[in-house]
Amino acid sequence: MAGKRKKSSGINRKSERTAAVASIAADDDSEITALNLKGGRLSDGMDSYFAKCQEKLGFVPNVLKAYAFDNAKLEAFVAMYNDLMLAPSGLSKLEREMIAVAVSSQNRCYYCLVAHGAAVRALSGDPPLGELMAMNHRAARLSKRQRAMLDFAVKLTNEPWTVEEPDREALRRVGFTDRDIWDIAAVTGFFNMSNRVASATDMRPNTVYHGQAR
Amino acid sequence: MAGKRKKSSGINRKSERTAAVASIAADDDSEITALNLKGGRLSDGMDSYFAKCQEKLGFVPNVLKAYAFDNAKLEAFVAMYNDLMLAPSGLSKLEREMIAVAVSSQNRCYYCLVAHGAAVRALSGDPPLGELMAMNHRAARLSKRQRAMLDFAVKLTNEPWTVEEPDREALRRVGFTDRDIWDIAAVTGFFNMSNRVASATDMRPNTVYHGQAR
Amino acid sequence: MAGKRKKSSGINRKSERTAAVASIAADDDSEITALNLKGGRLSDGMDSYFAKCQEKLGFVPNVLKAYAFDNAKLEAFVAMYNDLMLAPSGLSKLEREMIAVAVSSQNRCYYCLVAHGAAVRALSGDPPLGELMAMNHRAARLSKRQRAMLDFAVKLTNEPWTVEEPDREALRRVGFTDRDIWDIAAVTGFFNMSNRVASATDMRPNTVYHGQAR
Amino acid sequence: MAGKRKKSSGINRKSERTAAVASIAADDDSEITALNLKGGRLSDGMDSYFAKCQEKLGFVPNVLKAYAFDNAKLEAFVAMYNDLMLAPSGLSKLEREMIAVAVSSQNRCYYCLVAHGAAVRALSGDPPLGELMAMNHRAARLSKRQRAMLDFAVKLTNEPWTVEEPDREALRRVGFTDRDIWDIAAVTGFFNMSNRVASATDMRPNTVYHGQAR
Amino acid sequence: MAGKRKKSSGINRKSERTAAVASIAADDDSEITALNLKGGRLSDGMDSYFAKCQEKLGFVPNVLKAYAFDNAKLEAFVAMYNDLMLAPSGLSKLEREMIAVAVSSQNRCYYCLVAHGAAVRALSGDPPLGELMAMNHRAARLSKRQRAMLDFAVKLTNEPWTVEEPDREALRRVGFTDRDIWDIAAVTGFFNMSNRVASATDMRPNTVYHGQAR
Amino acid sequence: MAGKRKKSSGINRKSERTAAVASIAADDDSEITALNLKGGRLSDGMDSYFAKCQEKLGFVPNVLKAYAFDNAKLEAFVAMYNDLMLAPSGLSKLEREMIAVAVSSQNRCYYCLVAHGAAVRALSGDPPLGELMAMNHRAARLSKRQRAMLDFAVKLTNEPWTVEEPDREALRRVGFTDRDIWDIAAVTGFFNMSNRVASATDMRPNTVYHGQAR
Repeated sequence: MAGKRKKSSGINRKSERTAAVASIAADDDSEITALNLKGGRLSDGMDSYFAKCQEKLGFVPNVLKAYAFDNAKLEAFVAMYNDLMLAPSGLSKLEREMIAVAVSSQNRCYYCLVAHGAAVRALSGDPPLGELMAMNHRAARLSKRQRAMLDFAVKLTNEPWTVEEPDREALRRVGFTDRDIWDIAAVTGFFNMSNRVASATDMRPNTVYHGQAR
Repeated sequence: MAGKRKKSSGINRKSERTAAVASIAADDDSEITALNLKGGRLSDGMDSYFAKCQEKLGFVPNVLKAYAFDNAKLEAFVAMYNDLMLAPSGLSKLEREMIAVAVSSQNRCYYCLVAHGAAVRALSGDPPLGELMAMNHRAARLSKRQRAMLDFAVKLTNEPWTVEEPDREALRRVGFTDRDIWDIAAVTGFFNMSNRVASATDMRPNTVYHGQAR
Repeated sequence: MAGKRKKSSGINRKSERTAAVASIAADDDSEITALNLKGGRLSDGMDSYFAKCQEKLGFVPNVLKAYAFDNAKLEAFVAMYNDLMLAPSGLSKLEREMIAVAVSSQNRCYYCLVAHGAAVRALSGDPPLGELMAMNHRAARLSKRQRAMLDFAVKLTNEPWTVEEPDREALRRVGFTDRDIWDIAAVTGFFNMSNRVASATDMRPNTVYHGQAR
Repeated sequence: MAGKRKKSSGINRKSERTAAVASIAADDDSEITALNLKGGRLSDGMDSYFAKCQEKLGFVPNVLKAYAFDNAKLEAFVAMYNDLMLAPSGLSKLEREMIAVAVSSQNRCYYCLVAHGAAVRALSGDPPLGELMAMNHRAARLSKRQRAMLDFAVKLTNEPWTVEEPDREALRRVGFTDRDIWDIAAVTGFFNMSNRVASATDMRPNTVYHGQAR
Repeated sequence: MAGKRKKSSGINRKSERTAAVASIAADDDSEITALNLKGGRLSDGMDSYFAKCQEKLGFVPNVLKAYAFDNAKLEAFVAMYNDLMLAPSGLSKLEREMIAVAVSSQNRCYYCLVAHGAAVRALSGDPPLGELMAMNHRAARLSKRQRAMLDFAVKLTNEPWTVEEPDREALRRVGFTDRDIWDIAAVTGFFNMSNRVASATDMRPNTVYHGQAR
Repeated sequence: MAGKRKKSSGINRKSERTAAVASIAADDDSEITALNLKGGRLSDGMDSYFAKCQEKLGFVPNVLKAYAFDNAKLEAFVAMYNDLMLAPSGLSKLEREMIAVAVSSQNRCYYCLVAHGAAVRALSGDPPLGELMAMNHRAARLSKRQRAMLDFAVKLTNEPWTVEEPDREALRRVGFTDRDIWDIAAVTGFFNMSNRVASATDMRPNTVYHGQAR
């Protein structure tokens, strides 16, 4: 039942390279999901991506290690994630992380709430904002723009079949372009996917997230 | 409000090349989503992918045209889709399409039900099976394996926070490996994403799907 | 467990008379519900009604065969059904069938979705309309009148306790009379009944419906 | 907005005939539904049925007066109702009324809870039983048979798409025949219909019910 | 499993004192909850409170006997209850009881519906009003003030996380002060607590309530 | 709209006494709820209780300040709270706080999640445990005892009407006594009350909680 991933060659190479990783991160490594999947060989691209994570963040997010059993799946996930969350957009990076957390709250996804809650705290410099996104976005004091954005994301998460033109109009009224609406929809969709992969596999977040930006 | 996509250079090039496309497909072109997004330039890779769709299917699925406003997003979507639905897996292609439709039924996604309902009919040679997946998978006469697979997908769609080890055990008991469980989760997750992008943008399926494999 | 109805005298007489029925219809006969109910003797009226179905439709709808174990129940069902769906009304027959399918979609009733989806396709000459009613009526391009009608029917199906005067006013505003409102309510109510009888007994639709009016 | 039914010829004739009706029943007459429907002419059969109600019950149930605007609809309703609730069945009349109330409780139908709650009290001689059916059937001290019957009815009311063979088996295990299962399903279905007609039209119960069999 | 409370010294003393209690109340005594909790010694204050109940009501409400196993818990409950339901407030006692019943209806709490339904009937002199609160408050003919009050209470019961400033504004608009809003919230909250204690312990109401004020 | 509580005499006296309170706590004071309620005079008992909070915690929890507009309500709340959460019980204080957070998570109560999440972190010395209770208790690695306790509390919160003897038996099976079951029910009930008072009034937690025991 335990998702031991010791034999993952890609990851082993990783941990050799990063001998300095704190014990907390090492612990994270031992049981990332409830699935027993043998790690495959990572492409050079993914190999350096993991190295970059280690260098920049001090750890490799467990979701990446979870996908690492299959390089093609990992690459597809990373490509989509990076485009959605980091590429230029009318939504700020913080706004995209706020959507991530508000959506994950509806789906009660432990992995995503912990990892992206930390991102909201870090990007906003406002620790309670991270809690509010995870607990109840309606209780946050938000601009009309951000409230409309999150209301749309939450409705799209909970009752996608009821989203219609007036919902899109509500976004346009607070200044979002049609391209922005796509991005709101795409980020909302992405976390509705990730939440379910994480829940289905009992994915565990790196414990280092808990203390970040408190 | 209408998502006219006439200026999409990638798509225009496409439609020049495929002058023989039936008028029904041409109609499909005119209003794919409720968003007004200017098409961008497609990479050569995506350009030939569209040409291959046209050649093999006789049309380019509207979801691809919808993503074509941004080549990076299109490529990420296509890479993930093709890996999930077409790459080798312990799940047959039909089984993956059955999950697609059962999930889309929970989310009442018109686009995905029409497009993937046709796929279930075609791959199974059993038109009522496509209807059953779209209407109520519990009414289908399924093998224990397929019933367990769909029950997991539907539970993961509707209440992801309640999925736990006994749910994974139920899949193992009917013969699924941990790698298969990942694939069930990933396909379920993917359509929970696509359903929401489609619903958020009012994406319309190519009408040609309706008559396929009846 | 199988609802074999071979001994149903009424039905046996029926099938003798209609030796020319295609094998598909004969198959339909063998297992209509999950209940093992001996057919009773049909009245002359019901006998000729079955004959008329056979003559006009080429088959006897399975719901009638299911009720045929008890002539009084069959007669009551037929009387109510024919009054609601065929008698003069401010609602067109197509509109009544649209309600039937939209309601059955909420209740995920396989029998009614298949049988009445075919009716919507046939009466409208618009196959996608049948799909839209079965999948998500909100995605259909409807007149204000028909949209209001279906919103009322769906709300009355899902949360009947919340229907109040403003809901009736919304119908009057798009031109429905009080008599029309009764008919919308009565058709909605009727399929909330039929959906449950069908689901409780695992009633199976005649397979001939699947290909009709595609 | 008020459903005055003064011009209903059938009803007028009725009330002339029953000059002795208590003032409370006369009040009931004045506003039965929120729909303004002119009463039609009743057939002789319905005319004597109303007379029989008046004679036996001391009043005509408002649901009958509500249907009386159209004799064909009234006859169809009465035929189905009387067959279901009064004809021979493996279910006692009390059991059928218990289903009526438990179903109406799920749908929060004021009319049916009042009218059939009175019937449960009267038939059982146990006033709290009527309350329990209306409030929460799970809190009642019931035989296994009656508890299984009501659990089936409530599940079929709330989530008809999840009813499957194990649900029918649970009924067979406590002694119900397949014919009984039909009757449980049919009564459950019928009140899912009536609840919605009553809610859609804001049907008001005769006030006389409130004090009956307390 | 049966909540026999024979050894409860406090209660025993009570019942000695009140030898005249009708047999119905004596029966009530025998099984109040499904928990087997030994009664503790009541304080003099609680002792006289029970005596006062007996004197004024003719019986001690079972909820008090249920709490009597621990004098501190009983005193805390009584203090809060009496402050909320009997102390001066902008809400009349009837209005507070109407909230109690409407909330208990959402939570389907048999104990509270029976006990407080009787209170609504008694305080209003309008037996159907008690039924309406228990069955569906939306079907009652209420003043705008009382309807807004109950809509707030029901929303706060069912989806507390969605209550926001517009909901409070709706109360202010019909004349409630901020202090009144507190009281509506507090009564709603209190019965959301009591409903759960009663349901968790299968608390049974004194049967005497059933016939009161009919 | 802002719940300024400047005139609250009791609280003013408090803040004079506690001039050393950090500015963060002072800020908390300025807007505790969305209701404009004039503070009343506190009893000596409550006065010293506030002083004790200040001394022990370094601040007075906002919920107490919110109730302070009426000394009787404050006393009743404090008496019940302290009995439930601090008095001897078969449940440890940590277990009672775990219930508090798991219940508040179902009701998405910002105030209670922040305040009691901090308590779980502090009492357990396990910061992720606080997050797990707030996000999804099913994802926590718990003893069978604590898992059963929280499952009961969550079920009682979400569907109190479905709690029956087998639910109590499940608690007894993992070692809880009937008295413990009462305490689980009472704590669950209490937070179902507090969550609603907090949500109805938009109660804001002291910001100091956010950083505690991380």
